[in-house]
Amino acid sequence: SRSINLAVIPGDGIGQEVVAQGLKVLDSVLPQDVKLETKEYDLGAQRWHRTGETLPDAELDALKSHDAILLGAIGDPSVPSGVLERGLLLKLRFAFDHYINLRPSKLFPNTATPLAGRPDIDFVVVREGTEGPYTGNGGSLRTGTPAEVATEVSVNTAYGVERVVRDAFERAKARPRKKLTLVHKNNVLVYAGHMWKKIFDTVGREYPEVTTDYLHVDAATIFFVTQPERFDVIVTDNLFGDILTDLAAAVTGGIGLAASGNVNPTGEFPSMFEPVHGSAPDIAGQGKADPTATVLSVALLLRHLGYEAEAARVETAVAADLAERTADRPRTTDQIGDALAVRVAS
Amino acid sequence: SRSINLAVIPGDGIGQEVVAQGLKVLDSVLPQDVKLETKEYDLGAQRWHRTGETLPDAELDALKSHDAILLGAIGDPSVPSGVLERGLLLKLRFAFDHYINLRPSKLFPNTATPLAGRPDIDFVVVREGTEGPYTGNGGSLRTGTPAEVATEVSVNTAYGVERVVRDAFERAKARPRKKLTLVHKNNVLVYAGHMWKKIFDTVGREYPEVTTDYLHVDAATIFFVTQPERFDVIVTDNLFGDILTDLAAAVTGGIGLAASGNVNPTGEFPSMFEPVHGSAPDIAGQGKADPTATVLSVALLLRHLGYEAEAARVETAVAADLAERTADRPRTTDQIGDALAVRVAS
Ligand SMILES: CC(C)[C@H](C(=O)O)[C@@H](O)C(=O)O
Ligand SMILES: CC(C)[C@H](C(=O)O)[C@@H](O)C(=O)O
Repeated sequence: SRSINLAVIPGDGIGQEVVAQGLKVLDSVLPQDVKLETKEYDLGAQRWHRTGETLPDAELDALKSHDAILLGAIGDPSVPSGVLERGLLLKLRFAFDHYINLRPSKLFPNTATPLAGRPDIDFVVVREGTEGPYTGNGGSLRTGTPAEVATEVSVNTAYGVERVVRDAFERAKARPRKKLTLVHKNNVLVYAGHMWKKIFDTVGREYPEVTTDYLHVDAATIFFVTQPERFDVIVTDNLFGDILTDLAAAVTGGIGLAASGNVNPTGEFPSMFEPVHGSAPDIAGQGKADPTATVLSVALLLRHLGYEAEAARVETAVAADLAERTADRPRTTDQIGDALAVRVAS
Repeated sequence: SRSINLAVIPGDGIGQEVVAQGLKVLDSVLPQDVKLETKEYDLGAQRWHRTGETLPDAELDALKSHDAILLGAIGDPSVPSGVLERGLLLKLRFAFDHYINLRPSKLFPNTATPLAGRPDIDFVVVREGTEGPYTGNGGSLRTGTPAEVATEVSVNTAYGVERVVRDAFERAKARPRKKLTLVHKNNVLVYAGHMWKKIFDTVGREYPEVTTDYLHVDAATIFFVTQPERFDVIVTDNLFGDILTDLAAAVTGGIGLAASGNVNPTGEFPSMFEPVHGSAPDIAGQGKADPTATVLSVALLLRHLGYEAEAARVETAVAADLAERTADRPRTTDQIGDALAVRVAS
């Protein structure tokens, strides 16, 4: 019989609430014969305040044994900026070699967009997850003095770029429009940018059926709001991907709906699924958070583990639920989770 | 009697056409007693193809003697990406210590925006212009091999950050809303980000009348499309400023309207004014380019040189011209320039 051994990191703020709904839906959608085991990990702001720990080695090791990880949100204003991001969230992405940071963007019918004319938006950003300016390379000299120099080093390897570019070509090839856009800034960041472009062109020769395109990151933001329908698959570096996917979330109904997967395609380490949004401490504990992004992250998790039919059922349920939402009938986090769990029940 | 000794770099593509209109309007708005002298510099793609030169020292030296520089656009697909950007445009910004890259964003009445609901947009981005990932520090090891490593180093100094932050506080203080937002990514780029934040907070203590705010760059892009009216003055680093100002241009009517100034506030070197848009080779030479961004850059130039009344007249003329535009009555580049020149005539 089949089983899923899932690690759960609810984290901070609304993380707890949305993860509960994600698990509810997961439980409901899985066939009877699949045994779902979950183990919760107490990581995040409270743990740090209590013990000073962000992610001890023992827990990192324990996390390794799971089939996948579901994460809610990490971060709290009471913790200095960077401590939990670098010490927990990014540590997981780097330790588990999550080199594919997968972020689909789709404007569902009946969801609000700030864009006039409601363009047809349905693209996926394949963001590199283990290199670029996120490596933590850099430093500060004469810190806090008027002579301080602070550097941040973006590290890019052919090894790292090739594998993410190849993954993006595979995804583009599998989609109806078969279009892949590379986003970088190779007219200024010439060392990294030229390497990205050259690898993109080289790998592209193996995929003659995929139409390719290059955009500078600044120009890409323009098209995200004037012509988002032009995009199918986008591949880009860690920082540009971070920026572009928040913008993508904003034009497709807000970060309440944006799902993501931190994927290690080799299966050497567990992949991690999390909503793009943060811990939103201002609305935490009030039942106001929209759990949809987490539920859609559960769909990505299911697909990653080979449960394609179940993943599709979750996505269909979300689309149906969104289609029936009206502003005059607001629901709590729990109610939305319940409704989705009912819809996906087999 | 007064005089302006202006260097003109029309550059590539539509650069020639839009600069001609900018000069037309400048000529028309200046009082009789101001002597306008212009000297054109042949720099850009054609020059590079002909001679291999981007910006020889002799010309850099000659440019120094001017009161200001008006630049059209630089770049052509026939030139490898980065050659003209690094060798000409960025070389000028760095050599002339243009540490304030000033980019106002205003949604004029009757101009198209992709945003539903037409929010009230009127903010200015103060982008650092001489540091960050734009310094050209970095390199490539084992270039072109599967073992290549390419780095880009963002260099940030307390000296460079403090002067741009101070300039931004001064600008915020002079505006009715007196609000300044720092945009960075200090939860990931902790070395540079913490330095920026600390200097921002320290300088801010000298400006108690200015309300301050901090946003991560990814979150800032969300607000640019969902709540752009929240911004008054934004201060940010070179790369984030590049990305945000293209997005700002997109939501305020397109890069056909976005002006910029590369300012050296000390007056040690001439400041340079240019539209945010590129050379648009696809529409070059057809009279299709909108010269408004260049004309608005001329307004920034006038203000920088102390011609405040004339600057305001140019801006008023642009607003009036935009208010009368209709899609069924398209005009050529030249016709728009003529109309603006007539409106500003004293
Ligand atoms: C919290 C932060 C470290 C993270 C990132 O920058 O990757 C977040 O913005 C995201 O996009 O998942
Ligand atoms: C052309 C390029 C080097 C430039 C930049 O990145 O600064 C442009 O995008 C701009 O914003 O002026």
